[in-house]
Amino acid sequence: MTSVHRNTASSSVTSPLRLGIAGLGTVGTGVIRLLREHADLLRHRTGRSIEVVAVSARNRTRDRGIDLSGLHWHDDPVALANDPNVDVVVELMGGAEGTAHTLVTEALKAGKAVVTANKALVARHAEELAHLSHQHGAPLLFEAAVAGGIPAIKVVREGVAADALTRLGGILNGTSNFILTEMAETGRAFEDVLQEAQDKGYAEADPSADIDGWDAAHKLSILTAIAFRPIVFDSLAVSGMRRITTDDIHQARKLGYAIKMLGVARRLPEDRVEAWVQPCLIPARSGLAQVNGVYNALTTEGPFSGPITISGQGAGEGPTADAVMADVIDLARGHGLPLWGRVDEQAPIPCEPVEGLVSRFYLRITLKGSVEAETALEDIRTVLGNEDVAVEKGHHHTSQKGDAQLILLTGPVTLGGINRILPLLEEMPLIKGTPLALKVEDLP
Amino acid sequence: MTSVHRNTASSSVTSPLRLGIAGLGTVGTGVIRLLREHADLLRHRTGRSIEVVAVSARNRTRDRGIDLSGLHWHDDPVALANDPNVDVVVELMGGAEGTAHTLVTEALKAGKAVVTANKALVARHAEELAHLSHQHGAPLLFEAAVAGGIPAIKVVREGVAADALTRLGGILNGTSNFILTEMAETGRAFEDVLQEAQDKGYAEADPSADIDGWDAAHKLSILTAIAFRPIVFDSLAVSGMRRITTDDIHQARKLGYAIKMLGVARRLPEDRVEAWVQPCLIPARSGLAQVNGVYNALTTEGPFSGPITISGQGAGEGPTADAVMADVIDLARGHGLPLWGRVDEQAPIPCEPVEGLVSRFYLRITLKGSVEAETALEDIRTVLGNEDVAVEKGHHHTSQKGDAQLILLTGPVTLGGINRILPLLEEMPLIKGTPLALKVEDLP
Repeated sequence: MTSVHRNTASSSVTSPLRLGIAGLGTVGTGVIRLLREHADLLRHRTGRSIEVVAVSARNRTRDRGIDLSGLHWHDDPVALANDPNVDVVVELMGGAEGTAHTLVTEALKAGKAVVTANKALVARHAEELAHLSHQHGAPLLFEAAVAGGIPAIKVVREGVAADALTRLGGILNGTSNFILTEMAETGRAFEDVLQEAQDKGYAEADPSADIDGWDAAHKLSILTAIAFRPIVFDSLAVSGMRRITTDDIHQARKLGYAIKMLGVARRLPEDRVEAWVQPCLIPARSGLAQVNGVYNALTTEGPFSGPITISGQGAGEGPTADAVMADVIDLARGHGLPLWGRVDEQAPIPCEPVEGLVSRFYLRITLKGSVEAETALEDIRTVLGNEDVAVEKGHHHTSQKGDAQLILLTGPVTLGGINRILPLLEEMPLIKGTPLALKVEDLP
Repeated sequence: MTSVHRNTASSSVTSPLRLGIAGLGTVGTGVIRLLREHADLLRHRTGRSIEVVAVSARNRTRDRGIDLSGLHWHDDPVALANDPNVDVVVELMGGAEGTAHTLVTEALKAGKAVVTANKALVARHAEELAHLSHQHGAPLLFEAAVAGGIPAIKVVREGVAADALTRLGGILNGTSNFILTEMAETGRAFEDVLQEAQDKGYAEADPSADIDGWDAAHKLSILTAIAFRPIVFDSLAVSGMRRITTDDIHQARKLGYAIKMLGVARRLPEDRVEAWVQPCLIPARSGLAQVNGVYNALTTEGPFSGPITISGQGAGEGPTADAVMADVIDLARGHGLPLWGRVDEQAPIPCEPVEGLVSRFYLRITLKGSVEAETALEDIRTVLGNEDVAVEKGHHHTSQKGDAQLILLTGPVTLGGINRILPLLEEMPLIKGTPLALKVEDLP
């Protein structure tokens, strides 16, 4: 036996690779369009032709702007799992449970390769899917599930596979980044911009997955499993952006920071993992602060590879279809891999509690109408001082709604410490409502 | 025959992958160090152990800070090509000709997989190496040859393999970027900073490859072969940065631009290619302008994938060793690929002439001591106007050497047109020396 796999060039795989696609929304039709426009290119790059042979979608009669004649139509998507003419099941329906879950698990059990863009499914059923893929020798690929057109999975699972990464993270949700960018650039309120994003189709009618951090958390969970080890999804610390105002963005900028929704995971000693998703202040001059609109960016850090950042469009028909097809090309080239890029199966572990995380914090405190800001600042400085929290910077301004607000930048303190202090502040008679605390993440 | 390659997880490849390393400079010793520090990780990620079994280097007695006992030492590196205990030859000697060339071609002829960091070799012997790799079914991988630790080859050859890219380019040489960054940040002169780079070991005693653009050209040629098609290396248009002064960097910044050495290739209709390396003005707010020091960055653009940018350390022991090992991991996982990621062989074609390239230009014109700047500007505007070149902006300043200089930003004109105008300007009695023209590249 030779020890190294030979070029596909010299092997004799010439049968077509046959795809069955479940879900014909924008991404599904984008995949079919790409396959037709780039048929020759794909054949040259893989040595075989790639064909769609079967499809399934909810509505058979809708005009999708592409010709579906000649494709076998399954009313039940799960039938693709056992269609003997299908080599690869491409799951583009979405949803962590229900039909998508049944289709993917049935396809793996049938020994079929699966390509999916379904981040919720992969993140929430990580252990089951890894086990089925391993047991049945069926590759499950999901490049399109993380950061749209950016080959983030490939970079982590293959590009820096030789390194023991210490940290990874970045901007993993395009919709929330679009909203924060628009708020920063136009001064419009969160609700207005969200409404626009919904009208344009960037945000769902229920925007929770995007703005409450769950979509980013699914992606972070997947990246963490590859870079470090699988984690229990529900143990991830997630907080959203609903309380961030345009005032906060402008005040942060005065302090030299931008506000971005970040997802970050770190490898800790003894095989432990810390992972969280939350809105943070990052230095306005950092690379990540330049990543705007629907763009995503991921940075990995390792002792050998150093920091590597990849950015691009985090969603959309073209980029997502391209990522789906990158997985299909890998399969056509014979490049299967275990789910997390490791041959040993690892049970998911819970993330470490984030209460011990130390950083500086941005505090926004709204004062009652009659209160004098300078006096309030002194009082609050005393309360914080009693809890051993220093105030590095403090200023006051009048919010768009006409409230007097104090903006503080604290010294280093734990997240648990800040969470203990917020109720103390809220109880002070001079303070109106609940203060907002945002982590300061001092990136390079 | 099944149509899709199975997980390595379920196959039974358990024999170690045995490496023979030629060249034990910083990268070679880095590879050995990485292999030892991450032995368990590599085994988990590939399903087999990876071992160095043989080495070759010029000096057998030098202390490299690592233990070489137990490794077979070859005085002649070419002997690695035929060592029956070596599965993969890792060539880290450098040089387009001579021993490195002989070793790599002999290894391919012997059917051995080769991993190399040698950009000059791959760029200048593209056709021969592609043919040998194809003919003998021997993979040749070279991730470390382009942009150090950044998985640039993988992103282009696999990550966006489904897309028909239209353009790629970026900052492909760390040394010249370090020099330009230092000049910008400290105001020191080119010669001073170059000397420092040489003292620190970032730049060679003969700095030509870095500062005259040849190193970037090698990398661009390789990327072009993968993304578009192979090109004749000598047809690439290359110009260096020796004439750029700290004054130029400051004047460009006044106009809202940074100066960076760029390498850019574009796919033109009818399978033609345009490719060049030259110092350019790019918008100071663009992503590439934030890529400083020894960092590299590559942007790809395609109709489906959109713009994708990846950045990281372009050189150094750790990043380069990590990139070498990413290739070794691909081999251990059984992921061979044809040289340019295509199964058909394509003969290299010459690049299109760059004379027709249209852009705006930065012009720096030094005046003789007695000349009044405002008058000179009017005269020069007339000369340019006669050649149909508009002046969008113009100002004058006194250079660090005490010369009066005009700084102009032209309207759109061809590179050929600018090259015809420069001698006309030089002949004007009020002008001292040869004016400098730099392309303005209006990136997003």
